[in-house]
Amino acid sequence: MAAGKNWVLTVTAQTPTNIAVIKYWGKRDEDLILPINDSISVTLDPDHLCTTTSVAVSPAFTHDRMWLNGKEVPLSGVRYQNCLKELRSLANDVEEEEKGIKISKKDWEKLHVHIVSYNNFPTAAGLASSAAGLACLVFSLAKLMNVKEDNSRLSAIARQGSGSACRSLYGGFVKWIMGKEENGSDSIAVQLADEKHWDDLVIIIVVVSSRQKETSSTSGMRETVETSALIQHRAKEVVPKRIIQMEEATKNRDFPAFSRLACADSNQFHAVCLDTLPPIFYMKDTSHRIISCVEKWNRFEGTPQVAYTFDAGPNAVLISHNRKTAAQLLQRLLFYFPPQSEADLNSYVIGDKSILQDAGIQDLKDIEALSPPPEIEDNIPSQKYRGDVSYFICTRPGRGPVVLSDESRSLINPETGLPK
Amino acid sequence: MAAGKNWVLTVTAQTPTNIAVIKYWGKRDEDLILPINDSISVTLDPDHLCTTTSVAVSPAFTHDRMWLNGKEVPLSGVRYQNCLKELRSLANDVEEEEKGIKISKKDWEKLHVHIVSYNNFPTAAGLASSAAGLACLVFSLAKLMNVKEDNSRLSAIARQGSGSACRSLYGGFVKWIMGKEENGSDSIAVQLADEKHWDDLVIIIVVVSSRQKETSSTSGMRETVETSALIQHRAKEVVPKRIIQMEEATKNRDFPAFSRLACADSNQFHAVCLDTLPPIFYMKDTSHRIISCVEKWNRFEGTPQVAYTFDAGPNAVLISHNRKTAAQLLQRLLFYFPPQSEADLNSYVIGDKSILQDAGIQDLKDIEALSPPPEIEDNIPSQKYRGDVSYFICTRPGRGPVVLSDESRSLINPETGLPK
Repeated sequence: MAAGKNWVLTVTAQTPTNIAVIKYWGKRDEDLILPINDSISVTLDPDHLCTTTSVAVSPAFTHDRMWLNGKEVPLSGVRYQNCLKELRSLANDVEEEEKGIKISKKDWEKLHVHIVSYNNFPTAAGLASSAAGLACLVFSLAKLMNVKEDNSRLSAIARQGSGSACRSLYGGFVKWIMGKEENGSDSIAVQLADEKHWDDLVIIIVVVSSRQKETSSTSGMRETVETSALIQHRAKEVVPKRIIQMEEATKNRDFPAFSRLACADSNQFHAVCLDTLPPIFYMKDTSHRIISCVEKWNRFEGTPQVAYTFDAGPNAVLISHNRKTAAQLLQRLLFYFPPQSEADLNSYVIGDKSILQDAGIQDLKDIEALSPPPEIEDNIPSQKYRGDVSYFICTRPGRGPVVLSDESRSLINPETGLPK
Repeated sequence: MAAGKNWVLTVTAQTPTNIAVIKYWGKRDEDLILPINDSISVTLDPDHLCTTTSVAVSPAFTHDRMWLNGKEVPLSGVRYQNCLKELRSLANDVEEEEKGIKISKKDWEKLHVHIVSYNNFPTAAGLASSAAGLACLVFSLAKLMNVKEDNSRLSAIARQGSGSACRSLYGGFVKWIMGKEENGSDSIAVQLADEKHWDDLVIIIVVVSSRQKETSSTSGMRETVETSALIQHRAKEVVPKRIIQMEEATKNRDFPAFSRLACADSNQFHAVCLDTLPPIFYMKDTSHRIISCVEKWNRFEGTPQVAYTFDAGPNAVLISHNRKTAAQLLQRLLFYFPPQSEADLNSYVIGDKSILQDAGIQDLKDIEALSPPPEIEDNIPSQKYRGDVSYFICTRPGRGPVVLSDESRSLINPETGLPK
């Protein structure tokens, strides 16, 4: 170790969130977080949804500490502890000649770390912030500690923090292999294809207004495994076939197959939630209306234009075949779910604003002027649901974790080792 | 046949509706209406929910005609035709000496009938009006035609008109045996216990406000059978066990078991609807809130007080253990779902008003004065959903079909053979 006690060594990384298109729901091991089936996800562009985490080590630190979105949070949970313990066991010598810092492999057992993490999207929106967060914690600490294992090995560590976090170690299209080993060593994420493989997909996330507290996914999936009469059939008979078909659809950029599988699997995940005792309802009337809007349009066109998928909450993640269908989708969504009159268009549709331009929407008046989509039956007056959506995020499939070498983006003050 | 052409012979009958507690969803034969699993239902008291049907025969009638709730409706549908054809084949000699009427067995092939039917509850409320309607049509025509087969045999005829109608041929607790024969002859209803066997149950039906048109159960169950990856597992593996357990629970008046099975099976039926492509949503946010209210209370008490079950629509059918729990349930329901201020209590809670008295509710002010139920967590302000419920019906398990011999209750003018 270096002679002085005043140095602080930091690393900053950015990690994306991801949305499963073949769902993870149910653990076979609660401690190691081992799932009852494989799952497949799409990584979302970190420009619009990501976690940024800075980690620091210093001989002056007296214990491990963490700050999330500006607030210190306890690191005592067994899941955090498992991640930290495993990372320390894989740590290596670190030498930074400029600062005269030298950490040997065995020093890591005694050194403490500070972790400072921010999401660039509201945590409360139910957008899998824990997946990006745990992945970023593991990825940035691994870089700090000079852990040499590849991202698949790191994914097995992140998995023990938050199951779906393992899928955030890669960009593009990612499979979480459930594995067979009791110790979970083969329950890892692998990349099926990077984000450039299928780059015309456009993703619109509909954040649905909701004041109700939802069942946490941790307790929800435990209750499903314990009480649903359908979950084992899903995990053993249905998902394995869908995994093969989804890999094929992704490989071939076969949007109709991709869409059918994603929609069916989202619906089946919510079906087994409903088959739980007591039943779990994540989707709301608004979620159902979004599905009906998409299903009606897909049927009208004769081939899927848009896929939908819902995680453990009411928000819709809508995956469009391309920019053109995304603009048409946004028109439909804004027609059915116009903003409150006092809203600001700039905060009602966020992310990639070019989709809004493609849809021909410059201001709120353009939304009010939208005509009903042609698939609406003539004899049924089209109903609008003003205020039922909080906002929309336009995004796309994106890259995996990266180290941000620009010091100015660090969240940690290099003098004090505390949050900036 | 009698010499003159001016006589009209009529029969009037009243038939209950029923609510399944182990659900029928999915046919193995669309024409004969043969189900993919057994089901069990509770017959509802016809004083509050029933169909009254008068049928008439006269040599003056030129073709079969039917009037439903005051409007003439076509009888040309294959389902009606199958019922009429089978009843004619089982008809026998009829002699009414007073009126000098004599119809021989073979005359029925040439004679035409008039059918006039009324529901004592709103058809639009989605309360299985077709079950009571078809059962009543078959039962009353069987009496008119002197059909000698017992109600189980008649149930197989009613089944061909509307599947769940077969269960309305008996009072109390009824099982529809799916049967094995290709011609459907053994797909019949049998009575498990009559309505006196378990007479402290009280049923509250919550009619939920909804403007949306629902998927018809006929097309809904067809789509589920064609597209759900879970329905066959439900029909073959889950339901057979539940049927045995539900028969046992009914026999032993074991309310906790009855409640657990009914709730689980209702939820699983809605789960397979959600697993259908495109997904079918019958329950609304209001339905989910009713379930949460019941689940929270049942958990708080440590043993089930109330069972819930939902058919192909958003309305809840809540089965209370006894009068006391029914009054407590009604207090909870009125607390969460108070009427609009301009409402009339008399039309907001209908049916057996004595439950309202037991709940201590004399007028609308008593509803506003209700305190939050004790199971609400102290730190969560209790939310109210005014206007989300149209009305409540208080009822109980009830008797099977009966002939109404009082001529004044006939819906047919005995002179003209037309609706009164």
